[in-house]
Amino acid sequence: MEILFATSNKHKFSEASAILSTKIKHFPFQYLEIRSDNLEEIARDAVAVAYAKCKTPVFVEDTGLFITALKGFPGTYSAWTFAKIGVEGILKLMKDESNKEAKFETCIAYHDGTDIHVFHDVCEGRLADQKQGNSGFGYDPIFIPEGHTQTFAENITLKNKLSHRYKTLLKFSRFLKTRI
Amino acid sequence: MEILFATSNKHKFSEASAILSTKIKHFPFQYLEIRSDNLEEIARDAVAVAYAKCKTPVFVEDTGLFITALKGFPGTYSAWTFAKIGVEGILKLMKDESNKEAKFETCIAYHDGTDIHVFHDVCEGRLADQKQGNSGFGYDPIFIPEGHTQTFAENITLKNKLSHRYKTLLKFSRFLKTRI
Repeated sequence: MEILFATSNKHKFSEASAILSTKIKHFPFQYLEIRSDNLEEIARDAVAVAYAKCKTPVFVEDTGLFITALKGFPGTYSAWTFAKIGVEGILKLMKDESNKEAKFETCIAYHDGTDIHVFHDVCEGRLADQKQGNSGFGYDPIFIPEGHTQTFAENITLKNKLSHRYKTLLKFSRFLKTRI
Repeated sequence: MEILFATSNKHKFSEASAILSTKIKHFPFQYLEIRSDNLEEIARDAVAVAYAKCKTPVFVEDTGLFITALKGFPGTYSAWTFAKIGVEGILKLMKDESNKEAKFETCIAYHDGTDIHVFHDVCEGRLADQKQGNSGFGYDPIFIPEGHTQTFAENITLKNKLSHRYKTLLKFSRFLKTRI
């Protein structure tokens, strides 16, 4: 069975290819995503639109960084915020905040041709005071997972083992195995 | 003729009531707005959804603050960004920026039962280094219109005379007069 991964982000596609045992194919996909503070709501809407276009089993993945001191900013707008103000912008906003708590959250929605199945997981952690490391992408240089001292960008092996996206892909992978 | 103003923002409703000569009625409206960097695209989609609900001539208004040094941030996400990081967040992001240029932009989309009519206008200006004044709402305490030294929040009379929203409402008002 081959399924499509609808995304415009090549980093996400590489990560998913490495983790899923099912073969996936890139479905370049850009659409007018709805606005919502809820990842699942966005992913469900996106996969319905994607399936209507490709008429083939397809999944989408949405990830957000939720910073407690900033009321969940940038949240479901993480990619957009990153493109505008980057990691540097987040560091400026967090400079005088004592509460550095943050979490990454991922939601995968899979349309199998009949139903939509949803998977999610989180990675709790905190924000670094400055950029650390060069691996990964996005907010990885400032995110330190709980129980560790290095950022995702400093320790990509660690990231790949306990990240929100990894854990969610694993749940999805297990589900796919039961279906083949 | 009575028309509806679909908005969840009571400040916007008051401003519009004061400027339009046509009688307007508040249509409390919340929906899953699309994501886009284009105000007109959002307003056209929103008014189509609103009209489908109320089946009465209705308009929506969308306004954004576009900051040049931040690549247009917070732009079409201005209300959401304000709720998360507020004026203080914008000041932190702008602290070391030498280019303080910014503009407010408003778009009104009106559905007359058959067609959608769009009106927009801008107010060019710059950002203050700190909050100044207590009038208005949203980003008014940090926005200084071009050719002036006071923020919108320090001089509400000035705001009401030259703001993006005022100018757009005026265009809309003139249009409505030709239709009655």
